Amino acid sequence: MTVSRVTETLVRVNYSETDQMGVAYHARYLVWLDIARTEHLRQCGASYRELEAAGLRLVVSEVAIRYRQPARFDDLVRVRCWVREVASRRVTFGYAVEHAEDGRLLATAMVALLALDAAMGLARLPKQVGALLQPVPDPVALGLTSETQRTSRA
Amino acid sequence: MTVSRVTETLVRVNYSETDQMGVAYHARYLVWLDIARTEHLRQCGASYRELEAAGLRLVVSEVAIRYRQPARFDDLVRVRCWVREVASRRVTFGYAVEHAEDGRLLATAMVALLALDAAMGLARLPKQVGALLQPVPDPVALGLTSETQRTSRA
Amino acid sequence: MTVSRVTETLVRVNYSETDQMGVAYHARYLVWLDIARTEHLRQCGASYRELEAAGLRLVVSEVAIRYRQPARFDDLVRVRCWVREVASRRVTFGYAVEHAEDGRLLATAMVALLALDAAMGLARLPKQVGALLQPVPDPVALGLTSETQRTSRA
Amino acid sequence: MTVSRVTETLVRVNYSETDQMGVAYHARYLVWLDIARTEHLRQCGASYRELEAAGLRLVVSEVAIRYRQPARFDDLVRVRCWVREVASRRVTFGYAVEHAEDGRLLATAMVALLALDAAMGLARLPKQVGALLQPVPDPVALGLTSETQRTSRA
Repeated sequence: MTVSRVTETLVRVNYSETDQMGVAYHARYLVWLDIARTEHLRQCGASYRELEAAGLRLVVSEVAIRYRQPARFDDLVRVRCWVREVASRRVTFGYAVEHAEDGRLLATAMVALLALDAAMGLARLPKQVGALLQPVPDPVALGLTSETQRTSRA
Repeated sequence: MTVSRVTETLVRVNYSETDQMGVAYHARYLVWLDIARTEHLRQCGASYRELEAAGLRLVVSEVAIRYRQPARFDDLVRVRCWVREVASRRVTFGYAVEHAEDGRLLATAMVALLALDAAMGLARLPKQVGALLQPVPDPVALGLTSETQRTSRA
Repeated sequence: MTVSRVTETLVRVNYSETDQMGVAYHARYLVWLDIARTEHLRQCGASYRELEAAGLRLVVSEVAIRYRQPARFDDLVRVRCWVREVASRRVTFGYAVEHAEDGRLLATAMVALLALDAAMGLARLPKQVGALLQPVPDPVALGLTSETQRTSRA
Repeated sequence: MTVSRVTETLVRVNYSETDQMGVAYHARYLVWLDIARTEHLRQCGASYRELEAAGLRLVVSEVAIRYRQPARFDDLVRVRCWVREVASRRVTFGYAVEHAEDGRLLATAMVALLALDAAMGLARLPKQVGALLQPVPDPVALGLTSETQRTSRA
């Protein structure tokens, strides 16, 4: 089976997400990244609900995000998501947030997650999960400040 | 007048901020950083409410955050905040999020903001505002992935 | 043109919406009601984005909600929405929140909104907007505490 | 020991809570009520964190809220909270949300909670908890639509 390694998830900006500048509040993008990651995992055959039920936790250990253009109320936003790196205890995702209609790039981001067990202790990513997560080169330059190269920590 | 250049703001983790892992959800930290930044500005003599009323907007252009230990429901959290850099159109803040009772470091972060005018066009940071924002060296190493040095972009 | 007077909108419970009881946090339902109301208006031919651009504001003046069963992470939730009453300055919506897969009723609610102008002063609901909003009898008993009959205030 | 039966909790409206109307988004009030309820319980000698650790859950079963005037960014808001009724499985709280500086009434509300056990099954409110929660007559008329009298359900 071939799965698309860069998945796309649509979210529509709702009123609660706007702020008094008339744009989507910056912290909401992290929720959109989370929604896109959950869909990416699902499309890779790894339902996060099932992973948690099986005792795995993926907790966010680092986020970097660059905001380029604002999203507005009722805009349909497309979040492209891919795996950047898989290590024994850590997975890193890349994201491009785009305006769904005109394709403008709204934000780029990376999120690193650590594998924990149900008691929130450090764990190894199960091999069958790691096998489902195929890294791809960034399809878009993330342009994060001073992120000069990918890290190999894990 | 001498003002403390590293301010401290307390937030208590409320129930809405927890997730089903039993910890504060990661996107909430960005709101805490925002609250701390607003208090920092106030203590520096620059009420953000008044800055907006005068036509200035400070919009978040970049965030990087590293999560170190979880915060839990009802925990009192202390956010230390300082200015890292001031440029003609851009201000960068640094943050250390700590458990207020035992001092454990929960997260470190940087947030960059751009000055915009009321029409959301690029603007210069007013001189009198820039003068209130005195950069200090990071009191805590932020340890952000691959942020190898401070940037001088603006 | 005949439009369905009870519209249906799907929302999937994301991780940020869960709390440490392992269920969707109660305040999030109000956001789902807002999303469903926006879609209801759109399907009735009254885009809320366009209404705002034309100077109208619909602000929430009252909410009553009864929670019956919890929603959980990754559940697909269906929000049924209808107009209960239209008065000169006020519109009231009814809602049934259901589990999309098994149809269980999760919550029932009413939300009343007042028409304001762009300066946030009381306004009349434009006739052409009121004409698009056709009240229907509640398809589900809302069962709100002591709401013994519909009100006729406005 | 005499404790104040109407407690007061301050919250400051942060930027994330505003929406593009320039006011605090209506769903955020439910979070403020939650924060005030947690403080009320604490002041009554019943830390909710400890109640949960002891196996009790108080889940929101009903909310009714009437919005009277908007709160704005950086406003300091005072939430007055009291117990309206205590029954064997159910506690009802009343609230008045006020502008802290000028005392204007911003909203009134009631929230009913059910006692559940750690497995989320119906439970009785422990007697020692019930004893700490002393109902008082509403100090402010809540003015909720059609709430014609207090209920005696439980």
